Amino acid sequence: MDKNLCAQTPPMGWNSWDCYGASVNEEQLLANARYMAENLKEYGWEYIVCDIQWSEPKAVSQAYNQFTELCMDEFSRLIPAENRFPSSAEGKGFRPIADEIHAMGLKFGIHIMRGIPRQAVHRNTAIKGSSATARQIAKPYSICPWNTDMYGVDCNRDGAQEYYNSLFELYASWGVDYVKVDDIGASNFNPSRSYNAPDEVEAIRRAIDNCGRPMVLSLSPGPADVNCAFHLTQNANMWRITDDFWDIWDLLLDMFDRCEKWYKFVSEGCWPDCDMLPLGRLCMFDKTENGAAGRNTRFTKAEQKTMMTLWSVFRSPLMMGGEMTLNDEFTLSLLTNRELLEINQHSHGGHPVLREKDYAIWACTCADGRTAAAVFNLKDETADFSVDLSLFGLEKAIVRDLWEHRNMGTVEKQLTVTLEAHGAAIFVFGE
Amino acid sequence: MDKNLCAQTPPMGWNSWDCYGASVNEEQLLANARYMAENLKEYGWEYIVCDIQWSEPKAVSQAYNQFTELCMDEFSRLIPAENRFPSSAEGKGFRPIADEIHAMGLKFGIHIMRGIPRQAVHRNTAIKGSSATARQIAKPYSICPWNTDMYGVDCNRDGAQEYYNSLFELYASWGVDYVKVDDIGASNFNPSRSYNAPDEVEAIRRAIDNCGRPMVLSLSPGPADVNCAFHLTQNANMWRITDDFWDIWDLLLDMFDRCEKWYKFVSEGCWPDCDMLPLGRLCMFDKTENGAAGRNTRFTKAEQKTMMTLWSVFRSPLMMGGEMTLNDEFTLSLLTNRELLEINQHSHGGHPVLREKDYAIWACTCADGRTAAAVFNLKDETADFSVDLSLFGLEKAIVRDLWEHRNMGTVEKQLTVTLEAHGAAIFVFGE
Amino acid sequence: MDKNLCAQTPPMGWNSWDCYGASVNEEQLLANARYMAENLKEYGWEYIVCDIQWSEPKAVSQAYNQFTELCMDEFSRLIPAENRFPSSAEGKGFRPIADEIHAMGLKFGIHIMRGIPRQAVHRNTAIKGSSATARQIAKPYSICPWNTDMYGVDCNRDGAQEYYNSLFELYASWGVDYVKVDDIGASNFNPSRSYNAPDEVEAIRRAIDNCGRPMVLSLSPGPADVNCAFHLTQNANMWRITDDFWDIWDLLLDMFDRCEKWYKFVSEGCWPDCDMLPLGRLCMFDKTENGAAGRNTRFTKAEQKTMMTLWSVFRSPLMMGGEMTLNDEFTLSLLTNRELLEINQHSHGGHPVLREKDYAIWACTCADGRTAAAVFNLKDETADFSVDLSLFGLEKAIVRDLWEHRNMGTVEKQLTVTLEAHGAAIFVFGE
Amino acid sequence: MDKNLCAQTPPMGWNSWDCYGASVNEEQLLANARYMAENLKEYGWEYIVCDIQWSEPKAVSQAYNQFTELCMDEFSRLIPAENRFPSSAEGKGFRPIADEIHAMGLKFGIHIMRGIPRQAVHRNTAIKGSSATARQIAKPYSICPWNTDMYGVDCNRDGAQEYYNSLFELYASWGVDYVKVDDIGASNFNPSRSYNAPDEVEAIRRAIDNCGRPMVLSLSPGPADVNCAFHLTQNANMWRITDDFWDIWDLLLDMFDRCEKWYKFVSEGCWPDCDMLPLGRLCMFDKTENGAAGRNTRFTKAEQKTMMTLWSVFRSPLMMGGEMTLNDEFTLSLLTNRELLEINQHSHGGHPVLREKDYAIWACTCADGRTAAAVFNLKDETADFSVDLSLFGLEKAIVRDLWEHRNMGTVEKQLTVTLEAHGAAIFVFGE
Repeated sequence: MDKNLCAQTPPMGWNSWDCYGASVNEEQLLANARYMAENLKEYGWEYIVCDIQWSEPKAVSQAYNQFTELCMDEFSRLIPAENRFPSSAEGKGFRPIADEIHAMGLKFGIHIMRGIPRQAVHRNTAIKGSSATARQIAKPYSICPWNTDMYGVDCNRDGAQEYYNSLFELYASWGVDYVKVDDIGASNFNPSRSYNAPDEVEAIRRAIDNCGRPMVLSLSPGPADVNCAFHLTQNANMWRITDDFWDIWDLLLDMFDRCEKWYKFVSEGCWPDCDMLPLGRLCMFDKTENGAAGRNTRFTKAEQKTMMTLWSVFRSPLMMGGEMTLNDEFTLSLLTNRELLEINQHSHGGHPVLREKDYAIWACTCADGRTAAAVFNLKDETADFSVDLSLFGLEKAIVRDLWEHRNMGTVEKQLTVTLEAHGAAIFVFGE
Repeated sequence: MDKNLCAQTPPMGWNSWDCYGASVNEEQLLANARYMAENLKEYGWEYIVCDIQWSEPKAVSQAYNQFTELCMDEFSRLIPAENRFPSSAEGKGFRPIADEIHAMGLKFGIHIMRGIPRQAVHRNTAIKGSSATARQIAKPYSICPWNTDMYGVDCNRDGAQEYYNSLFELYASWGVDYVKVDDIGASNFNPSRSYNAPDEVEAIRRAIDNCGRPMVLSLSPGPADVNCAFHLTQNANMWRITDDFWDIWDLLLDMFDRCEKWYKFVSEGCWPDCDMLPLGRLCMFDKTENGAAGRNTRFTKAEQKTMMTLWSVFRSPLMMGGEMTLNDEFTLSLLTNRELLEINQHSHGGHPVLREKDYAIWACTCADGRTAAAVFNLKDETADFSVDLSLFGLEKAIVRDLWEHRNMGTVEKQLTVTLEAHGAAIFVFGE
Repeated sequence: MDKNLCAQTPPMGWNSWDCYGASVNEEQLLANARYMAENLKEYGWEYIVCDIQWSEPKAVSQAYNQFTELCMDEFSRLIPAENRFPSSAEGKGFRPIADEIHAMGLKFGIHIMRGIPRQAVHRNTAIKGSSATARQIAKPYSICPWNTDMYGVDCNRDGAQEYYNSLFELYASWGVDYVKVDDIGASNFNPSRSYNAPDEVEAIRRAIDNCGRPMVLSLSPGPADVNCAFHLTQNANMWRITDDFWDIWDLLLDMFDRCEKWYKFVSEGCWPDCDMLPLGRLCMFDKTENGAAGRNTRFTKAEQKTMMTLWSVFRSPLMMGGEMTLNDEFTLSLLTNRELLEINQHSHGGHPVLREKDYAIWACTCADGRTAAAVFNLKDETADFSVDLSLFGLEKAIVRDLWEHRNMGTVEKQLTVTLEAHGAAIFVFGE
Repeated sequence: MDKNLCAQTPPMGWNSWDCYGASVNEEQLLANARYMAENLKEYGWEYIVCDIQWSEPKAVSQAYNQFTELCMDEFSRLIPAENRFPSSAEGKGFRPIADEIHAMGLKFGIHIMRGIPRQAVHRNTAIKGSSATARQIAKPYSICPWNTDMYGVDCNRDGAQEYYNSLFELYASWGVDYVKVDDIGASNFNPSRSYNAPDEVEAIRRAIDNCGRPMVLSLSPGPADVNCAFHLTQNANMWRITDDFWDIWDLLLDMFDRCEKWYKFVSEGCWPDCDMLPLGRLCMFDKTENGAAGRNTRFTKAEQKTMMTLWSVFRSPLMMGGEMTLNDEFTLSLLTNRELLEINQHSHGGHPVLREKDYAIWACTCADGRTAAAVFNLKDETADFSVDLSLFGLEKAIVRDLWEHRNMGTVEKQLTVTLEAHGAAIFVFGE
């Protein structure tokens, strides 16, 4: 099957990292799934993704316990930690959770690290479907620079493809719809900053194609190298174009540069990824801040709109990062702006029109053929912007504001916009 | 005016470098212009481009005379060497040649180096329209790594924009339609290999916009950095994605990688450039080879077709490099394949479909909506290839061969092609 | 105690790597020790060094078995593999072998890898003298680029110094006189090529100083960075100034450059190290070559003399690499040239005098104050050289040839030497 | 002649850069010479060095005028600007000044830039003793990264050696005793930071050897690469081991690292150079600071002593940078500490003994065989230090303090010193 078919529009969902780090559990996953089913599903949100370290019984925060014991089956495959995912007991793995999420009309995703567990290698455990053992397929000098769980896999060895096949066979049996593979994209943590495991990307591509179940393939971390775009589009559905994104203006500002590098590569099934949306309640594992669990996003409301607007016109995947059951009204309103989500899901040709120190303008074509344009104030203060309609090939237009949800009547030649510091507006131009 | 309007399709023309190096003269330019007007104009070929060093009286080959005296006007602007371009005498510059070429229904282009002549700087000559002098606008540590003529221009200085404006005002007065600016693209000769003069690109963009005459802006050398693609598309019409290209298979093979990096950036007015076509009679300045002036292309016929096919499906500009008056029948046939040129000029969505060690497949959509597909044999021997029509979303198709100019009837599921070593075929699929 | 006292002259000995790789055993060690005691001890040779992987039961060649099980005590310390070193049984470690070697009037050395065994870390075993465990002191992202046995030790952690102390306490109890620590010098295998574990060098220095037994500290691999020379002289007795040296002329030629960088740092207790002498019978683990075990050195006799001469005038440590019991007469003669060894052990001020493409001249001052000079033919053919005595501040001299062991009478002004391709001569100038 | 003979001890003198930048004139040179003759000559100070840009008529400060006209003779050789050096008129060059300085019993030095003037190249002027012209020997892509005066010289070209010979022939005719060649050492301003013109160093070495007059050869800028130490010792007398040094504590602190890298290379005629001493009145060209011309050194008195102590025990050349006629008593006392200068001029074996975050200890052997030791307080506050005499192989010693000029009696085992922030003491130990 064409790998692009399972991600015809940018995936929309929730990922556990921003609120639960390495420690998310079954209850938290399902609570967010229920929230999504009730509040967001109708807007297109569908994936519930369990991020890193789900096989680690002792994880309690964003930190990784070095060399810690992981839960593993007899075939060197990591399985959920029962203390965190009780329904996985008796070898059921993520199947019960996936079933429950599917029953809500949603889809289920998991995170994995590239490679084979170091503990499998040091114990020299078996590989399903191969007489090779863990030790024989490990690439001993290929280690992740920030997590001690795995060794890379040497794809030239007998048993390597079988290992990856056995992983995705297992995930298919669980009902997984989405896999985020980590330590496989380019990373600023690698000395070379390079895309250093294309052979493992290909092995995983083959393993998904072989497993009989469509799964979205998402690659992390980033920033990806635009020189490798062709390989990425051939093998993956999403790839991070940024290092970890958090609620800090400089990182958001920086995303304009990144999107300028990548917008040409946005296409059906191929979604350069701006990373999770750090909105609402974050870092729930952190008991020290705010006198209570977690903290609210540090983004101003204006910045939050800027983020949602850029992610939409660029057509990034949208993965909510906050604990959704604690969403306030504003946060929910960001996730349920139907007109904006329509841009994210169904526009085409999104591109930067102008980029100056103080502002940026992007435009795209809506599904109905009308032009949409976003204006971003990159200054640290409120400012007015006069936008020439000629930039979009128009002399005049009936203008609709997608954040205010109102028609602005007919505008001639120039549209004048007042934007808060770091704020954004997005308009559709009709006739 | 939108800078893209002057290059709505990939520019087609002739450039003097591959046959005359730094030494082309008026007679040679006009002889090639006449040949083009008579033989090629009807196929869309239109530019006659005078390459590097036309202000240098002593140039006789491909070599640059270091620190040599250049012809220059009182405003620090280089002008044609009269001994090589007699019609330029009495301050007429390239105007008489441009007039003659225009009278043939063709267009005229010139090459310039980024910056201001070192001789102007050392003599501290005047800048038109500014009280600044050459010495004041020079960037003293910005020199070309392979030619001693110029210093870079410091665009932050008063007089810098005026200098570039004065250049293009002069070129407009001559009737120039196309300017190839050199030492301004990224280059493997620069230690950093970077795109190191974006400010001068912008100054030149402004100068063209100000001069009142549309001119194609072509940037050299290469390879351009795909990370800078947005800046390039905003400012230029063509930019080299390769270092100097010559008739050597490894360079042609390498172009597949380059095109894979750049195909997404091909759009109206923005043409990633695979460099000149080293076809027919080349290196006319070289008296030592073949017992006569110049030499024939080293490409096999199969390789020549591969080059023309790749340049077409990718939509590179097409700039003939050989001395056209010595074209043999085969060479002429390459330049007058109407069906192939139609792909180059009017297809869209050209992209790599598959890339393996032994072959490559590209496809695009023709102006009439049909799919075209090119198959390339990258092996050093003749080979057969079976191409699944499903790659193009087809079950069966009426196939036309654009090199053989013949209909192959209806093909079902698989198209089988036999290709010579390094050879190519290109087909259009109809219903 | 001053760490320099245990290596007042360049250490002389035998190391098992060049003939036995990772697989040396008790019998081989002792056979070479007996040979040394009988044939070489009187010339100053004294160390018998057991190189890498002595705790690995399955080692059979120069190759490292990845992730293989190592013999280890309850305190995470590697111990000899009993199948290879039978006398080490019942917890005796290397004590019986050391005793036997000491009884011959010789000294005993071992090789270790920087760090703590990965198997200790994955099993989280104990550290002697500390409540910390292996997992807590490991530096998880510090791995050797060519051997999978160890993780680096994080010297900032409690238990780290205790771990290294416990190692050297054990080695002292065995009677070890010399420790070659590997994966701790700069290496071309590290991406940064840097001296990347100075903190572990310091911890090892402290551990030796604490253990109550003098031990020579030798650091590997190389090439060391001359910018780090001060740290090396402060902490170690020998450090490799080259990557692994083998019997290949280009490597020997290259050593002239290396010695030119390092000669100023040669001083009592501080010996920049040109690596083992690949002489005689080598690679005994290799059953494929020569129809028998091992192979003879690939160096010509002239090259062997060149090596011995350079190592002597530079004052490198001298560690014989071949299986000594198979020494032929010529090989033995190289190791028993008393006059040359006197230069190695007791000269001072060795320095390059001239270095040209075709030849090199070095000089030093003998213990008795006379000047010695070595002349090296770097050409690929026999050549004559005329050496001005004025280079050494002499007008005439009574010359003695240290390879020919003969007096050449009085020479005036110029000494003329004929040298075979890659050959050398060394002379002492008397009055 | 052996090039080392002209610098048997570290050169001591005055250099115009720190007080007059690019603008020093005859009057200033001679005033400082007279001061030196009267006040410092008896302490060993002897060189008066005219630093950069003496051929530039318009220089008025530390800044370089880009592309400015330089005074040059008919053989492409720069000559003094008459407006600044009136006695140089009528082709006399620096001869009259040198004569006057020699008459005072002092020596005279000049600064030159590597290469040939760009103005000579662009005018294509003659080379003395060669039919080649300036254009033919220039290395067109070898330019200084911070000064526009010169092109490098291509030593492979005919005329290149003749050019350098002609320069030093001229300097010899003037009576020059010391030449500081700039843009020829490694520099942080070069992208590669490398020692990039060893061929020009060799050509200059040959030119000096040929000119018939001994001249000290000093190379700038720095920091030199210790990997190139052998080439430097073979060709030069001094070479900068630091980038430009100024009166800033961090630069002085950094010099301890630099001296630790270089101390082994200190030997007769070969002096790693810590750069000028920014003492007394500096930056006389700067009219903006202190309401008057120039400013006083920013070093505290303690720091000044630290500098003098380190330069002395390391045996750096000593080149005073301040305007000496404005020396206050303290400054003069620094330059006339006979006991300290004796260490600088006649000790040997200076080396770091200990280096910790808070302090450093260096030691050397005095000409009379006694040990001297310097203690440096690297902390930002006053501190006490107890120094074990055993570090110097002593149990007790009669101690003399070289800054206090007093005997401290017999000290046993430990010497206790109280040092101001960034201060130093230096002692000689007798019996």
